[in-house]
Amino acid sequence: MAHAPTLDLGTDVVSLTEQLVNIESVSHDEALIADAVEHALRALAHLTVTRRGHTIVARTDLDRGERVVIAGHLDTVPLNDNLPARRDADLLHGLGTCDMKAGDAVMLKLAADVTEPSRDITFIFYEAEEVASVHNGLRLLSESDPDLVRADFAILMEPSNASVEAGCQGTMRVDVRTSGERAHSARSWRGVNAIHAAAPVLARLQEYVARQPVIDGLTYHEGLNATRIHGGVAGNVIPDECVVEVNFRFAPDRSEADAEAFVRDFFDGFDVTVTDMAPGALPGLDRPAAKAFVEAVGGEVAPKFGWTDVARFTALGIPAVNFGPGDPTYAHKQDEHVPIEHIVRCERLLKEWLA
Amino acid sequence: MAHAPTLDLGTDVVSLTEQLVNIESVSHDEALIADAVEHALRALAHLTVTRRGHTIVARTDLDRGERVVIAGHLDTVPLNDNLPARRDADLLHGLGTCDMKAGDAVMLKLAADVTEPSRDITFIFYEAEEVASVHNGLRLLSESDPDLVRADFAILMEPSNASVEAGCQGTMRVDVRTSGERAHSARSWRGVNAIHAAAPVLARLQEYVARQPVIDGLTYHEGLNATRIHGGVAGNVIPDECVVEVNFRFAPDRSEADAEAFVRDFFDGFDVTVTDMAPGALPGLDRPAAKAFVEAVGGEVAPKFGWTDVARFTALGIPAVNFGPGDPTYAHKQDEHVPIEHIVRCERLLKEWLA
Repeated sequence: MAHAPTLDLGTDVVSLTEQLVNIESVSHDEALIADAVEHALRALAHLTVTRRGHTIVARTDLDRGERVVIAGHLDTVPLNDNLPARRDADLLHGLGTCDMKAGDAVMLKLAADVTEPSRDITFIFYEAEEVASVHNGLRLLSESDPDLVRADFAILMEPSNASVEAGCQGTMRVDVRTSGERAHSARSWRGVNAIHAAAPVLARLQEYVARQPVIDGLTYHEGLNATRIHGGVAGNVIPDECVVEVNFRFAPDRSEADAEAFVRDFFDGFDVTVTDMAPGALPGLDRPAAKAFVEAVGGEVAPKFGWTDVARFTALGIPAVNFGPGDPTYAHKQDEHVPIEHIVRCERLLKEWLA
Repeated sequence: MAHAPTLDLGTDVVSLTEQLVNIESVSHDEALIADAVEHALRALAHLTVTRRGHTIVARTDLDRGERVVIAGHLDTVPLNDNLPARRDADLLHGLGTCDMKAGDAVMLKLAADVTEPSRDITFIFYEAEEVASVHNGLRLLSESDPDLVRADFAILMEPSNASVEAGCQGTMRVDVRTSGERAHSARSWRGVNAIHAAAPVLARLQEYVARQPVIDGLTYHEGLNATRIHGGVAGNVIPDECVVEVNFRFAPDRSEADAEAFVRDFFDGFDVTVTDMAPGALPGLDRPAAKAFVEAVGGEVAPKFGWTDVARFTALGIPAVNFGPGDPTYAHKQDEHVPIEHIVRCERLLKEWLA
C-alpha cells in the first residue's frame, strides 16, 4: 500500500490544488487522497473529524446560530493522459483541476485558516461521485450518519465559474421501442420494418421546442434528445425492433411524475420504458440562508443545467447552491483546466462570508 | 482425414438426397462431399470429370448442337441442430435438404441415368456459395477454366418450388449518414443532434412505394429498406453521427448504375456511400434455349426475388433459370425441409427434357 502524501495546508490555494491533482484518485481508488485529507484535517484542533469509507467529515462546534455544509467530491473520471498537473500563467491544467480538486483545495484552506467562523461549518470531502449513485459517498453518509449532514444551508463546490449556480435540472432516460416482423429483405413486403416505424419518433424529436421557464428569476432550459439509436438483425433481414434512447433534462419546477407524464404524452402511441430518473432541485433563492449567501458573494446567479448533488441536499430539505472554481464545460475533457483567478476568488469570497 | 462415404447412384433420388444431407458440408468444409461426388462421377464412363478445389465438373461430349450447364452448390450454412436428415411421409427435414442437396441429388441421378442426352450437359457441383463471393466455386471456375462453364443455357438447381424462376433481382447496400456536433446533453442546445437529423431518412423510407415492373411477363417487386441503424456516443452526449444501413433490391431491368442513381436521388441531400452491389439478371425468357426449356417442363414461371448465381451466368452471356426442389423461404432456417414430391418432379421433368 502506498504511503499517503502529506498535504501542506500552509501553502497558497493554487499550489494546494496542484498537490491534490497529483494524487491520482479515479473513482473507487480514493484511499490515498482520503488518507492525505484526513491526516491534514486531524492536525487542526478546532475541527472534529469523522471518517466513513473514503469520505471525510470535519466540523466546527461553536454553537453558532447557523450551520453550513461545504462539500466536494475527491474522485475523478478516468485518466486520459492528463496528469500530472501543469501550470501556466493563467490556468492550471490536468485531470481533476476543474472537477473538482480546486474546490477541494478551497475547502482545505478554509478549514485551516478560518478557525473562528461566523457560522458553524461541516466540511464533507466525499468519494465516488463520478460513478453510479449507489457508490456516492454523500448519499452513503446521509444514510449512515444523517446528523453529520444536517445543516441550514449547503454549498457544493462543483465548478460553476466561481459564481453561484442555483438549483439544477432533473434528468430522465427512456427507451422508445418500435417493433415489426422479420422477413428476408429480398421479399421485404412479407415483413414489417421496425426501423421505418421509428420515423415519427425522430420527427417529433426534431420538431421539439424546449421550454425555458423562469424560476426565482433564473431561466432554465429543458432538452429532449435521442442519445443513442440501434436496430437491425443482419444486412438481408427486415428488422423487427428499433430502440431510441432518449434523455430528458427537465427544469426543477417539474416533479419526476410530471416529467414522466410529459415524455409519455410526447411519445403517445409508442412503447416507452423509463430506465433512469433523478429529480431536479429548485433554486431555493427565497430561503434566507441562500439569499444571504448570494448577497454576500455578489455577482450574477445562473441556473445550473447539469445534475449535481445539490439535488441530494434539496431532497434532504437543505437549501443548496453550486459555487466553485472552473468552467463545467471542461469537466471530463482531456484538456480539463481551471482558471487560477477562479480558485483565488472562491477562497477570498468564502473567507469574507465566513469571517 | 475422414474417408469419403460412397454414394449409391443406383438408389432413388430421395434416398440419395438423404445420403448427401448426412455428409456435413458447411462452407469451407466441403472436402468430404466433393470427394464423394467426384468418386461417384468418375465411375460413369460417359462423363469427363475435372476437379478444381472442391468444385467438380462432369461433361458429356456427344457433339450435340447445344450444351446446357446444370449447376448446384455443395455447401450449406452452419449447423443449427438440424442434422442428420429426418424423413416423414411428405418431407425430408434437415440442414441442406432445401438449399440445395435435393437439387444436387437430382443432378447426380441425371448424370448416372441419362447416358445419351439430347443435348450435351456440363454438371457443375461447386463449393462456397453461402459465403463471400470471393470464395464462390462457380466464380473461381469461370475465371480459371472459362471453357468448362461455356454453354447455351444454364439451369441452377436453387430451390424454386420445382418450377422455373427466371432472372433475379439485384441487391445494393448503402450507408446513409447524418452528422451533427457533440455537446453535453445537459446543455443540448450547444450541439446538433445527428440522430434527430435522420428523421427525414426514415420518413422517406416509410413513404416509399415499391415499383413492380413486368418483365417478360413476370412481375418483379423492388424493396428499399433500412436493415440496421446505429448512432450515439454516451447516455449524456448529443450524438454527432447516425448511420442508416439501407438495402435496395432492384428489378433486373435496372443496371447497377441506374440502381445507384435511384438511391442517390431518393436520399437527395444526404451523405450516401455504396457498400455493396450485385447486379440482377433479366429473365431472358425470349432466348430460344430458355423458351424451349420452359415449354418442356411446363408450369407457371415465377420471378426470382432473391439474388442467385443465375446473375453470374447472365453476366457470362449464358441465359439461365432457377429450377430446383424446395421452398426458398425455408432455406437457412432451423426447420429447413424439402417436399419429397418436388425432388421427384424435378428429376422426372429434367429426364424428359434431356431424353
